[in-house]
Amino acid sequence: MSTPLAVRYTAARQLETGPAATAPPGPGEVELAPAFVGICGTDLHIFHGSMDGRVKAPAVLGHEMSGRVVRVGPGVSGWEPGDAVTVMPLRWDGDCPACVAGHRHICHHLDFIGIDSPGAMQQRWVVPAETLVRLPAGLPLDRAALVEPTAVAVHDVGRGGVLPGERVVVVGGGPIGVLIGVVARHQGAEVRLVEPDAYRRSVAERVGLPAWDPADGEVAGRIADWTAGAGADVAFEVSGAAAGVETAVEALGVRGRLCLVAIHPQPRPVNLHRFFWRELTLIGARLYDRADFERAVELVAGAVIPAEVLISRVVPLAEAAAAFDALENGGDVMKILVECG
Amino acid sequence: MSTPLAVRYTAARQLETGPAATAPPGPGEVELAPAFVGICGTDLHIFHGSMDGRVKAPAVLGHEMSGRVVRVGPGVSGWEPGDAVTVMPLRWDGDCPACVAGHRHICHHLDFIGIDSPGAMQQRWVVPAETLVRLPAGLPLDRAALVEPTAVAVHDVGRGGVLPGERVVVVGGGPIGVLIGVVARHQGAEVRLVEPDAYRRSVAERVGLPAWDPADGEVAGRIADWTAGAGADVAFEVSGAAAGVETAVEALGVRGRLCLVAIHPQPRPVNLHRFFWRELTLIGARLYDRADFERAVELVAGAVIPAEVLISRVVPLAEAAAAFDALENGGDVMKILVECG
Repeated sequence: MSTPLAVRYTAARQLETGPAATAPPGPGEVELAPAFVGICGTDLHIFHGSMDGRVKAPAVLGHEMSGRVVRVGPGVSGWEPGDAVTVMPLRWDGDCPACVAGHRHICHHLDFIGIDSPGAMQQRWVVPAETLVRLPAGLPLDRAALVEPTAVAVHDVGRGGVLPGERVVVVGGGPIGVLIGVVARHQGAEVRLVEPDAYRRSVAERVGLPAWDPADGEVAGRIADWTAGAGADVAFEVSGAAAGVETAVEALGVRGRLCLVAIHPQPRPVNLHRFFWRELTLIGARLYDRADFERAVELVAGAVIPAEVLISRVVPLAEAAAAFDALENGGDVMKILVECG
Repeated sequence: MSTPLAVRYTAARQLETGPAATAPPGPGEVELAPAFVGICGTDLHIFHGSMDGRVKAPAVLGHEMSGRVVRVGPGVSGWEPGDAVTVMPLRWDGDCPACVAGHRHICHHLDFIGIDSPGAMQQRWVVPAETLVRLPAGLPLDRAALVEPTAVAVHDVGRGGVLPGERVVVVGGGPIGVLIGVVARHQGAEVRLVEPDAYRRSVAERVGLPAWDPADGEVAGRIADWTAGAGADVAFEVSGAAAGVETAVEALGVRGRLCLVAIHPQPRPVNLHRFFWRELTLIGARLYDRADFERAVELVAGAVIPAEVLISRVVPLAEAAAAFDALENGGDVMKILVECG
């Protein structure tokens, strides 16, 4: 191939395409050829310039990916050129209190690859071998780019402790919200989604998740009818909006669990009296661990995840900037993949 | 004895003493002679007139009590006149979703005896036999009046899931905060208390709980030193103040649990980003169940609970109003008992 290319975030609302860094993989590293890279909400935040304090431009974004091994560095065993992989994009220090306690995905000095260090939106990418997760033969690589967000959903559903037969409300119907709904349903839960955007509701309905519009003021009544007055067992707050927090808290019955998935940069008013009165639990959920990632591979490979509905569009690397614009303008899109090959 | 008396809340800041109702106990009921009745924060709220929407004057208050059986109604077995008892002051409907799920203490139609129906601050009191909890021989009845608040602390520590060796911060050093600290320590935890009032800090120190003043701005640094930068495992919010919520959230390390004990009538700003980032959990805790109450009897009878420090004063029934005034004025008092005999 000609010179490998990379797409770089250079300043707010600017992406530039240029040559990728192509140093050979060092000890313990592997060079990959990314095939597909999904654009996620965090990538959009970076693109907006909202994370310039953390992301040092020029920066290669992208952490939802699939691809193939190109070459392996010294001391790497178990991987060969051509192997189909995805990457669990986390590096931890191993000795902070979180790591010592076994929670490496919330390491005090976590390196989130694709945010804190170079990501996958390029034609060659060097990563530590231990971040690789093998993809099964026959799994199309475009679908495999959904493994990372699916791992988020698996982790969230696990943190929420969803049990078969439970009634689950997902507040927010973007890709993560829909994936949570799908994973919770696969776990045996009954799921309802709350989402103001008509297009996103239509996507949820297409994957079989009944979706309610909070603008009609009927959500509380619908939940009461649906649960015979008991309230939901679990709610997921995936909207990032203050109103979403309120909806999720109100949705819950006695001893209900609210799994907090979305990022809320500002403190939000929370009805703590309701937490006391109904003995509710609020559970923060961030990222995933290795087991979540491997489970996500199974769910994507097993076609539990409706990839064909969730992937709205696939664009070539050269059109990545236009894809970011499309997502930013909030058109009728869910997940856009950038094809790197 | 002469005509049994009762103290009744008649209007904001008014208590009146008059004859107690003395109908004989009905089927399944027991008549008690209350010995000691503790005054708690909720009683003070009622006294302030803040709960007139719920408490219908004239109302006999009091739900932290000890006493003896006087007579038993038809169909009651297992109890005899003279038996020393306390009362778990809850009545539930048994068929609401909370009761059906086994959480009767958060029944949708809970009758909290002493708030929603007549309480113990009187010389004769009729209650359902199933609310009685037997007191062991030799337990002085004044100490036994601490069983109910101790049951609250047992429940809270259980909801917080406190394990031996864990580091626990209790925010708020009133009677419940100190009891939580004592119970958590008995469970094997290391405990620190945060409390702005110097008198309350001195009480905490007297029972062996190191107490920090949040006004000195050093609490975060002290917690970091104490936990080698990890943060606390569990925090209890017992202050009811917005600043207390903030202190408790900031205190916690990765996967820390915040047990919410205090009543916050208004929504509070909560740093949800921290919940996400550190995968924190917020756990609402309300009242207690039978097992908590029986464990509380053991702890009080076993002198784990430092009753002599916590009981600041014992006043006769005729001086109940003055005791409410003393507590309201926030003087150097922790628990005041009203002696009914």
